[in-house]
Amino acid sequence: MMIMMQPGASQQHISRIVARAESLRLPVQLSRKDGRTTIAVVLQGNDYLFEEFAGMDGVAEARPISNPYKLTSREFQPNDSVVSFNGTSVGGGKLVVIAGPCSVESREQIIETAQAVKEAGADALRGGAYKPRTSPYSFQGLGEEGLEYMAEARELTGLPIVTEVMAPETMPIVSKYADVLQIGARNMQNYALLHAAGESHKPVLLKRGMSSTIKEWLMAAEYILSHGNRRVMLCERGIRTFETSTRNTTDINAVPVLKAQTHLPVIVDPSHSTGHWEYVAAIARAGVAAGADGLIVEVHTHPEVALSDGPQSLKPEKFATMVRQVRALGKALAVG
Amino acid sequence: MMIMMQPGASQQHISRIVARAESLRLPVQLSRKDGRTTIAVVLQGNDYLFEEFAGMDGVAEARPISNPYKLTSREFQPNDSVVSFNGTSVGGGKLVVIAGPCSVESREQIIETAQAVKEAGADALRGGAYKPRTSPYSFQGLGEEGLEYMAEARELTGLPIVTEVMAPETMPIVSKYADVLQIGARNMQNYALLHAAGESHKPVLLKRGMSSTIKEWLMAAEYILSHGNRRVMLCERGIRTFETSTRNTTDINAVPVLKAQTHLPVIVDPSHSTGHWEYVAAIARAGVAAGADGLIVEVHTHPEVALSDGPQSLKPEKFATMVRQVRALGKALAVG
Amino acid sequence: MMIMMQPGASQQHISRIVARAESLRLPVQLSRKDGRTTIAVVLQGNDYLFEEFAGMDGVAEARPISNPYKLTSREFQPNDSVVSFNGTSVGGGKLVVIAGPCSVESREQIIETAQAVKEAGADALRGGAYKPRTSPYSFQGLGEEGLEYMAEARELTGLPIVTEVMAPETMPIVSKYADVLQIGARNMQNYALLHAAGESHKPVLLKRGMSSTIKEWLMAAEYILSHGNRRVMLCERGIRTFETSTRNTTDINAVPVLKAQTHLPVIVDPSHSTGHWEYVAAIARAGVAAGADGLIVEVHTHPEVALSDGPQSLKPEKFATMVRQVRALGKALAVG
Amino acid sequence: MMIMMQPGASQQHISRIVARAESLRLPVQLSRKDGRTTIAVVLQGNDYLFEEFAGMDGVAEARPISNPYKLTSREFQPNDSVVSFNGTSVGGGKLVVIAGPCSVESREQIIETAQAVKEAGADALRGGAYKPRTSPYSFQGLGEEGLEYMAEARELTGLPIVTEVMAPETMPIVSKYADVLQIGARNMQNYALLHAAGESHKPVLLKRGMSSTIKEWLMAAEYILSHGNRRVMLCERGIRTFETSTRNTTDINAVPVLKAQTHLPVIVDPSHSTGHWEYVAAIARAGVAAGADGLIVEVHTHPEVALSDGPQSLKPEKFATMVRQVRALGKALAVG
Repeated sequence: MMIMMQPGASQQHISRIVARAESLRLPVQLSRKDGRTTIAVVLQGNDYLFEEFAGMDGVAEARPISNPYKLTSREFQPNDSVVSFNGTSVGGGKLVVIAGPCSVESREQIIETAQAVKEAGADALRGGAYKPRTSPYSFQGLGEEGLEYMAEARELTGLPIVTEVMAPETMPIVSKYADVLQIGARNMQNYALLHAAGESHKPVLLKRGMSSTIKEWLMAAEYILSHGNRRVMLCERGIRTFETSTRNTTDINAVPVLKAQTHLPVIVDPSHSTGHWEYVAAIARAGVAAGADGLIVEVHTHPEVALSDGPQSLKPEKFATMVRQVRALGKALAVG
Repeated sequence: MMIMMQPGASQQHISRIVARAESLRLPVQLSRKDGRTTIAVVLQGNDYLFEEFAGMDGVAEARPISNPYKLTSREFQPNDSVVSFNGTSVGGGKLVVIAGPCSVESREQIIETAQAVKEAGADALRGGAYKPRTSPYSFQGLGEEGLEYMAEARELTGLPIVTEVMAPETMPIVSKYADVLQIGARNMQNYALLHAAGESHKPVLLKRGMSSTIKEWLMAAEYILSHGNRRVMLCERGIRTFETSTRNTTDINAVPVLKAQTHLPVIVDPSHSTGHWEYVAAIARAGVAAGADGLIVEVHTHPEVALSDGPQSLKPEKFATMVRQVRALGKALAVG
Repeated sequence: MMIMMQPGASQQHISRIVARAESLRLPVQLSRKDGRTTIAVVLQGNDYLFEEFAGMDGVAEARPISNPYKLTSREFQPNDSVVSFNGTSVGGGKLVVIAGPCSVESREQIIETAQAVKEAGADALRGGAYKPRTSPYSFQGLGEEGLEYMAEARELTGLPIVTEVMAPETMPIVSKYADVLQIGARNMQNYALLHAAGESHKPVLLKRGMSSTIKEWLMAAEYILSHGNRRVMLCERGIRTFETSTRNTTDINAVPVLKAQTHLPVIVDPSHSTGHWEYVAAIARAGVAAGADGLIVEVHTHPEVALSDGPQSLKPEKFATMVRQVRALGKALAVG
Repeated sequence: MMIMMQPGASQQHISRIVARAESLRLPVQLSRKDGRTTIAVVLQGNDYLFEEFAGMDGVAEARPISNPYKLTSREFQPNDSVVSFNGTSVGGGKLVVIAGPCSVESREQIIETAQAVKEAGADALRGGAYKPRTSPYSFQGLGEEGLEYMAEARELTGLPIVTEVMAPETMPIVSKYADVLQIGARNMQNYALLHAAGESHKPVLLKRGMSSTIKEWLMAAEYILSHGNRRVMLCERGIRTFETSTRNTTDINAVPVLKAQTHLPVIVDPSHSTGHWEYVAAIARAGVAAGADGLIVEVHTHPEVALSDGPQSLKPEKFATMVRQVRALGKALAVG
């Protein structure tokens, strides 16, 4: 519920409401605009509490939060969230570029790639150790061995690591190594996994389901936030449409829509959303121009022999050019 | 791989190949046509075995299985699979009707509904105890309590029960009660769950993902079959399209496509695929006319107060009419 | 607007309202239910007339027609429309089967096919003389020559002919030969063509646009009806979705939705909606079971050499089997 | 067909081939790379000419054009087309901004808007006099009166005018006033109209059909080019998908895909592709960043009373900000 305080409401009035919410373990958020305070409280289904809060001293007006997602909404929290990990911050104005291979294939591969993307200007390293694959007979990832190689690459380059967690069972092992937990498109509505991510202390990169509406995506984020973890980033990775000339259709509209609806940072994945390396730089630029806070890009030193996603992986030189372009754009936008 | 034996191949030749496959724990399937034997063997990624099998005595010709799904394909197994549980058989020619509420809401509700659908001619009872809900604040199901009520309803009516399992963690508890494990649309590519279902000894009703292609669906089934469980039924529950006058778009084409591609039984869910009770009977009839082996239909004794899916639930009387219609159609088709 | 008359309203009251509407050249429709008369009048944008009609003697109540399509709605006309041509009636309870090749390719081909489909039980002959083709370099149809061959086939077999009109310019020449004017999916929102069809005196078969919603489709029909032609049939021919295993996705839900929303007859085209001859019979049966008034099916005596749509054309024998199946289904449904 | 000349082929050899193509009225295009000449000739279905050309003196190698669209392909013409009208050039490197209301509603409105967009930096004026409307009862445009007002606005501001032509019948009247003929999304496969546009001498802005693939769109352009008009611009205006938070989904991927496949200029319409004015600037920036040659944007001085598309129209001040942003981006990209 949104509680608008009277213009002259005292700090004590405000504190009492906040304290009451906290004693009930309800999420609460303060904001101030034009000298008036608004207190957002998520009732989490306990709708009978509405009257109690509405009747407290200093309250001018109260109404329900209008969206079905609460904690996730910009209504609840008007200011942008900034998600930080290992010295990197997403959502704070500086464009963040995450790069690396689809899968960790070997120690050499991930270390070589980490050094190449670091040099090209990346801020974080991506790479999958547990891979969701359409076929049970395809390469399923190196598992913990892959995580160890990523940790080694982090040590050498200083890049924080982003890697996918596929099941609640592997949450502890993935959390041991990862700086950011990625939840993949196929798992966007795997509620047991969202629940586990909500109880984790790691930032989460939540990919949009292949055919999920923006509203469903924000509801999936709400599962994580409502279980206690507010460090969530949303990643647009293309949606499924009738068009077949690209692997998916980048829903570029989602960027400004999310910016209007939620305070969470927005990341664009131009690799999965196009499926062809030659379109990646154009869509990376478009994502930044539309207002994204970051990019996550597949880079492989030898795409032609990649065990997965070779056709959509940039070589390091092309990636370096892309980084220069998006940094230049970012500057032009900051001025404009 | 598909191994076509020579016309005069001896039983011994055949047995040796089967024994070799079994010693390697590879799935194997025999079929005979026009006096010749074909042996299908799924190599499960061990492609180097191809030459060994192709070179064995009595082999006329060998080629890979042409589909990416192997065990699931009609190529591997030309004859229809029949999935049986508690005296009910799906895929054996008789139309099977599964009915019941979306969620188990109370002991009285599920028992009353079970008796009503039994009387109306249903063959099995559906009902969810663990519910995947878009919002973390919605009713999430009664859990084990709900399963106990279903078991009681089974005892009273004799109807086997079909209920959803949402996570590997709850597989043991759901398996303790269920006759058929349902895997929901949102979990169609939850590989940890598919893996667990593959190791279970219960039949599985695998719903199609909201935006999954038929090929992806068959690959998801392959995960279950390749982990040891061949008792899988496929359930078309509507796909997501641009049309908004119904909740989903029933992909009726999927019925004959599946019948051509796979030996697994096909069930149509006219409730989720339309979202409006007034269209359910028409789509149930269409599903049967297109060749489905069964239907799964939401029935609620008081849809107006249902905790979920009220608008698409039939009242028992309407359901009884629908059953009469589809049984009459089934007869007309059997004659034709 | 919907004008509900008082229970005791006299025939004179009713006649005055009807006469007033007719003097304004507004479409008007009477219906009676439970002894009360309702008069539907389409104001055609002249909303200021609402008050005048509402204030006339004998009127109990008046309200706008709730749908954006008026003449097309079941609200305006509660009873099913029956569209008749050359002794054939669509919408009157008997299932109508229209069959023939995609394109008229030669005199021999169309005559041979007409005789074959007649013998197999078809009620009308389809065939295109003007063909909308994706490529400017593909065969564009025989034009008037093709129409002449169709007329000859009609003379020989007695089958009325259904053929496509692509542009207002060719409306006169196509109307000279056709019994039913087909408007193709690509032209569903070609308003100049809809306007011309509305001024024509021929029945119209209006195909659904590849990605048109049911509402847009009914609005397209409204263009024809509002320009004076009420003899419109709606043809579901599959919609564009993400699924690629069939050419289009048959929106079988559209059949009961249309039956609820409009009084116009509904035809299903299982050939375009699947794109593969082996799925045509299953979808034809599904269409009938869902409540369609008719089918339009591509039949070719030599599909392997067809100039267009060969893969989705049935040979006459397969077509004959399909007709037997759908007639049997029709009977079973009539009883049920 | 693509004719690769020998390295030492003489000018005479080249001229003879070109002359032969021209004598047959076949489209022909020369290009040079690494000192070798390639001659592209579109056979327009006369495949028997292949051998003749392949056998001419100086030819090293010949092969068919690999795409189904020929004149439209980058294979046929490697260099970007520049489409010029009234002193404005699209495709030549400078970003072109077309702006104006959805419909011409009155003389005052279009003149006031023309002056406002001119001042804000627009290069051309858009406005519809003939409007394709879903409902036959909606405002259908002012017709020729609207065109006259647009011509007056052109005279006052110097802005060339872009306006829609809906039917071959109105081609002469629209051509009399328009600088650029717009073909709308609903008419993208209206072949009679494409044919007429091909015979026109005006540049054409061809909007993508709501659910047309890029390939179908290029084939529609091929209809225009193959009938003699090479001055075609392609306008991405959003596609229909399952997402409903925006009116359409901008297919931003289409920009780099088109740049790879065709030499024709690409325009992005952020107004129709989002349907909400608050997202227009973000998508305009994204379009430019992805490589578009121009933008077409709906601007209305009083969106709240617009007869059509009010919610997606920018007010002039917002439009001016958008123009500043995209010009700044354009500069940053040119440097990068």
